[in-house]
Amino acid sequence: MSRGSARVFVPAHVTGFFSVHRASNPLAAGSRGAGVTLADGVHVAVRRADEGGLTVDGEATTVAPVERVLDALDASPRIEVESDVPIGAGFGVSGAIALGTAIGVNHVYGRDRSENDLVRIAHRAEVSAGTGLGDVVAQHRGGAPIRLEPGAPGYGQLDGIPDRRVVEYVSFGELSTAAVLGGDTEQINQAGEAALEVLQARPTLDHLVVASRRFARESGLATESIRGVLADAEAAGGSATMAMLGRTVFGFGTGLSDAGYEVTRCEMASGGVQVE
Amino acid sequence: MSRGSARVFVPAHVTGFFSVHRASNPLAAGSRGAGVTLADGVHVAVRRADEGGLTVDGEATTVAPVERVLDALDASPRIEVESDVPIGAGFGVSGAIALGTAIGVNHVYGRDRSENDLVRIAHRAEVSAGTGLGDVVAQHRGGAPIRLEPGAPGYGQLDGIPDRRVVEYVSFGELSTAAVLGGDTEQINQAGEAALEVLQARPTLDHLVVASRRFARESGLATESIRGVLADAEAAGGSATMAMLGRTVFGFGTGLSDAGYEVTRCEMASGGVQVE
Repeated sequence: MSRGSARVFVPAHVTGFFSVHRASNPLAAGSRGAGVTLADGVHVAVRRADEGGLTVDGEATTVAPVERVLDALDASPRIEVESDVPIGAGFGVSGAIALGTAIGVNHVYGRDRSENDLVRIAHRAEVSAGTGLGDVVAQHRGGAPIRLEPGAPGYGQLDGIPDRRVVEYVSFGELSTAAVLGGDTEQINQAGEAALEVLQARPTLDHLVVASRRFARESGLATESIRGVLADAEAAGGSATMAMLGRTVFGFGTGLSDAGYEVTRCEMASGGVQVE
Repeated sequence: MSRGSARVFVPAHVTGFFSVHRASNPLAAGSRGAGVTLADGVHVAVRRADEGGLTVDGEATTVAPVERVLDALDASPRIEVESDVPIGAGFGVSGAIALGTAIGVNHVYGRDRSENDLVRIAHRAEVSAGTGLGDVVAQHRGGAPIRLEPGAPGYGQLDGIPDRRVVEYVSFGELSTAAVLGGDTEQINQAGEAALEVLQARPTLDHLVVASRRFARESGLATESIRGVLADAEAAGGSATMAMLGRTVFGFGTGLSDAGYEVTRCEMASGGVQVE
């Protein structure tokens, strides 16, 4: 069935730790790691139009993985994106826009693809564009996804932490995912694989934060100012960790707000991507 | 972390068609097929108590897979189940209670299992008890799950139909899952495999109904009175199909209510099982 328009919600995804897995086939490439999906996210409205184009929060722009998704599904719609979360700051917004576009275009143009097909299209677009490795599969699953094996459906494998708590986050700005992923990732990978072992032994949200804090330190990705925020949250009796990859800190409970930061508070996403 | 109590929502799951896949390892056994999860479902409240026990809609009872889940997680809680949907009528209630119990006990007793672990425990319990083959994995995923390969996480494989519509259903009573699954399933399996091919070629909700109606006929599972209801819905300009295994009919749109049946109407479940 084809329709005039569709609106898709994709949860934001903050990654606590990860390791990089390259492969010649982008469907098999990706990351291992774990994170949390949020009830805050990205709303992608897709409609047929004489003139295609993309706006994010009202500004005309281009997003590399979106071009690839539209090529794969052979469509030139008008796409309007509203984001609840900051862009480029570790919330997986590029993956969310790619996935929302794939699902929205499937509806509007009656492409009759399966859910896994559309996740594969968005994952491949994101990996090929170098803007992310694990957000799309996590945003499809929802909850607190553990990426056991890298890659798209049929290649990767996911598990999850069966717990839900209120999340606090505070963002101080952007970090370039492409710059980090394009550099030497040996230290990141060692720290990421160690963190995954810790989490798998006890897959709880508390251990996600513990494993992620150690990863932030050992990977070398936490800047001095981020480390300061994490210490403040701990001194206030809470705990928090860095969202990979952004100058963003997130935690459960009220550690960040107790430490005096102006946080945003939201629920975890109960499900993954969905048509609104 | 352990808590005093937990309340878990598990969506009902109506199966349109299926084929039976037996295996000596119950984690590898299950069904192929497809269906729809509902925003109506089962609410499972779990709490520590001096005296364990299970009530469903206020009545003390036993549910075979639940005993097995409690054995696996070594717990004897008090469990109170409220069901939005009829029991024994093709809504996957036994699987839902098993899955809700696994997730609730994990919370209350601090068992620190992963999501996949808990799905495996509930799936194994359901298959071993003979009460179902594919509901648990579908109820974990949500949406409109396609069971590509039978079995629990790590064994089976799922896809989904990326569409959401309002569901109507009407139930005329029970069918024994154990009696059907315990009999000769050759005719069911042939019809189920054929239906899966039809759906995979065009994974839409309309094709789910088309493939399921043919399955209901060719499998021999549709009784004469069920076939009458399906014909009435079609005559009213809609379409509907039988929920496997129950004397229940479901469809999208208003075919059943236009034909004069007193239906229940609900949304599809956007996500799978969740802690409330």
